[in-house]
Amino acid sequence: MIVKSFIMTKYFFIAVLAFNTLFAQNSDSLIIRNLFTHALTKGKCYSNLQELCFNAGPRISGSKEAEISVEITAKQMREAGADTVILQECMVPHWVRGEKEIAFIVDSKKGKIEVPVCALGSSIATPPEGITAQVIEVKNFEELKNLGLEKVKGKIVFFNRAFDQSKINTFEAYSGAVNQRSRGAIEAAKYGAIGVVVRSMSSIIEDYPHTGNMRYLDSIPKIPACAISTKGAEILSQQIKNGSVKEFYFKQNCQTLPDVKSFNVIGEIKGAEYPNEIIVVGGHLDAWDMAQGAHDDGAGIVHSIELLHLFKSLGIKPKRTIRVVAFMNEENGVRGGNKYAEIAKAKSETHIFALESDEGGFTPRGFALGMSAEKRNKILAYRNLLEPYGITDFSHSGGGTDIEPLELLGVPVSGFIPDPQRYFDVHHSGADTFDKINKRELELGAASIAALVYLIDKYGL
Amino acid sequence: MIVKSFIMTKYFFIAVLAFNTLFAQNSDSLIIRNLFTHALTKGKCYSNLQELCFNAGPRISGSKEAEISVEITAKQMREAGADTVILQECMVPHWVRGEKEIAFIVDSKKGKIEVPVCALGSSIATPPEGITAQVIEVKNFEELKNLGLEKVKGKIVFFNRAFDQSKINTFEAYSGAVNQRSRGAIEAAKYGAIGVVVRSMSSIIEDYPHTGNMRYLDSIPKIPACAISTKGAEILSQQIKNGSVKEFYFKQNCQTLPDVKSFNVIGEIKGAEYPNEIIVVGGHLDAWDMAQGAHDDGAGIVHSIELLHLFKSLGIKPKRTIRVVAFMNEENGVRGGNKYAEIAKAKSETHIFALESDEGGFTPRGFALGMSAEKRNKILAYRNLLEPYGITDFSHSGGGTDIEPLELLGVPVSGFIPDPQRYFDVHHSGADTFDKINKRELELGAASIAALVYLIDKYGL
Repeated sequence: MIVKSFIMTKYFFIAVLAFNTLFAQNSDSLIIRNLFTHALTKGKCYSNLQELCFNAGPRISGSKEAEISVEITAKQMREAGADTVILQECMVPHWVRGEKEIAFIVDSKKGKIEVPVCALGSSIATPPEGITAQVIEVKNFEELKNLGLEKVKGKIVFFNRAFDQSKINTFEAYSGAVNQRSRGAIEAAKYGAIGVVVRSMSSIIEDYPHTGNMRYLDSIPKIPACAISTKGAEILSQQIKNGSVKEFYFKQNCQTLPDVKSFNVIGEIKGAEYPNEIIVVGGHLDAWDMAQGAHDDGAGIVHSIELLHLFKSLGIKPKRTIRVVAFMNEENGVRGGNKYAEIAKAKSETHIFALESDEGGFTPRGFALGMSAEKRNKILAYRNLLEPYGITDFSHSGGGTDIEPLELLGVPVSGFIPDPQRYFDVHHSGADTFDKINKRELELGAASIAALVYLIDKYGL
Repeated sequence: MIVKSFIMTKYFFIAVLAFNTLFAQNSDSLIIRNLFTHALTKGKCYSNLQELCFNAGPRISGSKEAEISVEITAKQMREAGADTVILQECMVPHWVRGEKEIAFIVDSKKGKIEVPVCALGSSIATPPEGITAQVIEVKNFEELKNLGLEKVKGKIVFFNRAFDQSKINTFEAYSGAVNQRSRGAIEAAKYGAIGVVVRSMSSIIEDYPHTGNMRYLDSIPKIPACAISTKGAEILSQQIKNGSVKEFYFKQNCQTLPDVKSFNVIGEIKGAEYPNEIIVVGGHLDAWDMAQGAHDDGAGIVHSIELLHLFKSLGIKPKRTIRVVAFMNEENGVRGGNKYAEIAKAKSETHIFALESDEGGFTPRGFALGMSAEKRNKILAYRNLLEPYGITDFSHSGGGTDIEPLELLGVPVSGFIPDPQRYFDVHHSGADTFDKINKRELELGAASIAALVYLIDKYGL
């Protein structure tokens, strides 16, 4: 009977499909388990990061340390098992900090109160003797506007909006505060300020000033900008409230030199079945000059390289081409990210997926997803395979700064999300050192990224 | 028409029910949001923990520091807003470490190699001059048994089974290794060993020895037991492999003095509607004598006290009686936990729920649940309220050591589960100090516990 046999066929088909799905999930779950076991017991990312932190160190774009980091990364990619490693040339800005900055409050009661500051990235210097002026505290641009030219002209503006600690995700607190750093000098200069001091972008009250990039507009006078430690900001604010602050002084002699040739480092394993479908996994190789860039973004670099090591060690031969990219110059220019996308576009390469790790080497929590609902659902279907490893948060969108140029070309992107609580304790400050890395947390991150990439490589996206 | 009106009534009823449920969830989600905001912006748990760590410090049962910690905790509970604070008397063991322990390898090639050790809790001393003997390495009790009396007699047994680093949850790795510490001396003495050296229960390779409790049986000779740092264990094992170890030496003069009177500290807010239904939230007040007991279990103590502070600050008047209990003597006797349950039983008190925080002050991940499927499902229904705070793991069972005696009386229990990756880096060692606490992580834990207790108090269990 045709109908019956059709039904039987249908059921048989469903049964086979279910069996295959189950089998695939079982075999995938075994492979993912192996990725984690290998990362945690025979992983290389911790020792790789140690090498990057101690042998390259503070590798701001254009520096000698950045050059060394390119060599180290290329070597680590070869050791990890890349088929080919290439250096992709790009010109990068060359900003140098110069001598250690100095700042103090001139207080009518307490005399000189020294406070820790550092120049913001891309800032100009003060005159060689520094600047001294009255200081005026604001929380935001609205307050600044209300004060207007009359009250701001000739003064130093002190931006003192703290992180909103009620945010569960510290990245939200950062987003809510960071325009003081990035645009503070522009806004203050509009009203005639001669310098800005910005409260450090930090989750804690401490002595380290946190740098980070700032911008100028050609149409508005450029004034020097520095970050003050959160503890320094609290003191300055208190003394202003006390009415005893006469002036603020700071001195910095940073400068921007001509652009320098640098490189993205790209390590590839050619795909066995679809070599023209490319999956990018990366982080950024440059780091601020305050410390070793252990979490930002040494962690992302070694997370990415570990993917090569894990696939090679476990004999996983990817169907698609896996390209690990150590992007240069995320911190003050994104020239590496832009260059990569520009060349990908010029060559008409097909990128099916790009993932960035640039939120530190902490315990994995999830992945942000920047892609169509259909592709997103495809990834969400892997949740049961990832949840045993604490990877449960898929609620965020977007990828990362270096892969945004790819995203703009229509490439589906993802960002690795580790636990965010400690990131801004160390971000862009002297505290971002290797001793802040927990080995297991770092390794779990590497394995999580490898697991997701394994699934996307195997099943496409 | 009856049928129609019945249907309408039914739909009306469903609509009202749905509206009420939605409203309740909305209002609960607001209150939970407030609990988190208050904990993160006006919380007391970080400063409370600082006080406990620095003013009481290493508060092992029976010590002067434990006495001080009882006073501090009682004061903090009163400040947090307890209606009544009582001290519940219990006798506790009084083990003292004595002088700092000494150990070295007598190596035919390298001479004396000093290694960091510490006596295990409850161990006897060595003779005053220490013990020197050949050392034999085993990984487990099976190996020991196979060696037998002939090869073990008169020797020091070195238990060197490392944590299984492939476990995602470090508590599983701990469980798989800890019998060496707790039962090693018993097993080795069966075969005539004169002492044991146990690899520290640590997730990392480092210099701190980790103490922790061990046991004896009256029927088997008592031999001294110490922990060796993981780095020391690696060296000893390597030298044994090299064939150059002649003997091992260690000296400790710890002793167990007569029991001492001590206390559980109990702070209560009487329930407004069902005062006879009791909810217990607690941690343990005693801590090993190696450091400040910041994570183990100062964190659990201040998490629990913070519940009182948060409820009081936000004007939450619990329906049931909330009892915050700082249990004494979890580490080497559980006398406080047993005493609490004994008195609860004698008074025929009704405990509807007991929760313990004793896994450190790290970012919240979930709650273990030890209760009937029905009650478990009731709690699982709150998931959507808790997930925005990263509380997603309800897969574990059980509560905690101090509330196990209550669990045995049939009380539903829960254990707070923070991120486990860093716990055994500091557990029972000199590294368990206040500087290892991240303020936000600690505060998020306190708010998570308050959120769950708020729901259970409001809706019962």
